[in-house]
Amino acid sequence: MAEDNWSKGAAYVDGRFVPIAEAAIPITDWGYRRSDVTYDVVSVWGGGFFRLDDHIARFRNSMDALRLDPPEDDAAIRAVLTECVRRTGLREAYVAMDCLRGTPRPGEPRLPANCRNYLAAFAVPWVWLMSPELQARGAHLIIATTPRIAEDSVDPTVKNFHWGDLTRGLFEAEDRGADNCVLLDRDGFVTEGPGFNVFAVTDGEVATPDRGALEGITRLSVMELCGELEIPLAVRPVPAAELRDADEIFLATTAGGIMPASRIDGRIMGNDRPGPISVRLRETFWAKRAAGWHATPIDYGVSGTA
Amino acid sequence: MAEDNWSKGAAYVDGRFVPIAEAAIPITDWGYRRSDVTYDVVSVWGGGFFRLDDHIARFRNSMDALRLDPPEDDAAIRAVLTECVRRTGLREAYVAMDCLRGTPRPGEPRLPANCRNYLAAFAVPWVWLMSPELQARGAHLIIATTPRIAEDSVDPTVKNFHWGDLTRGLFEAEDRGADNCVLLDRDGFVTEGPGFNVFAVTDGEVATPDRGALEGITRLSVMELCGELEIPLAVRPVPAAELRDADEIFLATTAGGIMPASRIDGRIMGNDRPGPISVRLRETFWAKRAAGWHATPIDYGVSGTA
Repeated sequence: MAEDNWSKGAAYVDGRFVPIAEAAIPITDWGYRRSDVTYDVVSVWGGGFFRLDDHIARFRNSMDALRLDPPEDDAAIRAVLTECVRRTGLREAYVAMDCLRGTPRPGEPRLPANCRNYLAAFAVPWVWLMSPELQARGAHLIIATTPRIAEDSVDPTVKNFHWGDLTRGLFEAEDRGADNCVLLDRDGFVTEGPGFNVFAVTDGEVATPDRGALEGITRLSVMELCGELEIPLAVRPVPAAELRDADEIFLATTAGGIMPASRIDGRIMGNDRPGPISVRLRETFWAKRAAGWHATPIDYGVSGTA
Repeated sequence: MAEDNWSKGAAYVDGRFVPIAEAAIPITDWGYRRSDVTYDVVSVWGGGFFRLDDHIARFRNSMDALRLDPPEDDAAIRAVLTECVRRTGLREAYVAMDCLRGTPRPGEPRLPANCRNYLAAFAVPWVWLMSPELQARGAHLIIATTPRIAEDSVDPTVKNFHWGDLTRGLFEAEDRGADNCVLLDRDGFVTEGPGFNVFAVTDGEVATPDRGALEGITRLSVMELCGELEIPLAVRPVPAAELRDADEIFLATTAGGIMPASRIDGRIMGNDRPGPISVRLRETFWAKRAAGWHATPIDYGVSGTA
């Protein structure tokens, strides 16, 4: 296998390492055909994982919630992720881990409990959810008319691929000339957007939803930074009106860090650029990342797995 | 390629026919990673498709609703499905067609509108959603506590893989010693179960939900049969209490036809066996199928595609 095959990405599927171009899910797998799967994404920056243990712990909680039980324990998952990155040689990478339901064992009733669950993972070159140029300008957001899938139907704290509502929101955003969208719950409170948590800044206070959204690891980092920087933070229901009238809005995700917005539903916030609290949090976040904050360095020289 | 590879199933993925064991979806595809995909399933029985045009028309409507646009027109899809079955030689087959979002074209913003959509399809040996033995006994159903994903978040008439709520319902059923489940909407009305429509029979009238569920092709067949057999049929909201108190319940799906139940939430209906109206509909359905009702015969000798 030419080295170049690995530099584009390395994957692990059901026990076997393969170049990303060969990494695939059987078309009959319930992980695909029923979206019966959970996942997590961890970033590699400057040759180290960011908050690796937090991501693996959340992934394990998600698997437990869905009664998914792959053969790999947490130490093995850590080794698999490390080996994927090592094979690519990437210093900045987007690293995903999935646990799929699989298919029913032959001869057993076609029920989820009778499936052989398995792990898949991959590392690819870093992906920006929003480009650095867009982050510098500030995202133009809309509040989508499509409501978020309710949490009693699909638990948003268990990371999942049920993105039909989010995809509709993305088309709504594009139709309205915006970059991205935020979805509300049925009671009109802010939930999240496609792959990110949402923060509203009003009179110097940062507010983010306490429900209806993923408990993001970057969201957790924002909470820590607010503490360090003595910026007031409230984790509570956030009404749509609070977001529409906010002084600043920013988003948080693994694939982008802290991403400021500059417009909401066509309204210009501040001077049509990222606001001061958003910028301060973003700059502090990346400065601390560069200094090794919550980092797990990767040994690129040695394979930790067969 | 040995003939036996094809007898286990034949697939078509993004322009290429492959044995089912080789049919796979790239792990990075949004059809998997965002469940941004629609599908349909048509049955082959006695060497002919059942209601092929109805399935392809519904599939096209689903693709349009999600702004999915694969290169294949309806005639090409028909040819692909036929060729998949022809390669297997199967007289009874489960035939699926998927349209996936794909991934963003290189260099374009990572938005669904920038993806290259494509078709996948496969034919495999016939799959019973419920075994014939279970159908003869009558399924034991529960009404799940998990509510169905609301239709303003994900449209249930656009066939989709957002099964997180249905999978939870299946685990609930297993935990309560039942075979399968029915989900309610937030207002307490019956929607559907994992892959089937639901019918309640009370005082000789058959009732099935007018909303919150897939507009099933087998459901359509039930409607036609009720007309022919002069069985009163109502398509309207069906409260949970009506299902709990029904004289009979039966389910309808491509992968099983008309499937009677005998218990609901632990309550025995009739004599703990499929009820008379359910049995009459089921027997008429299969007798008409055997006689070529709505059938499109397959020419197994000639390849209609390259």
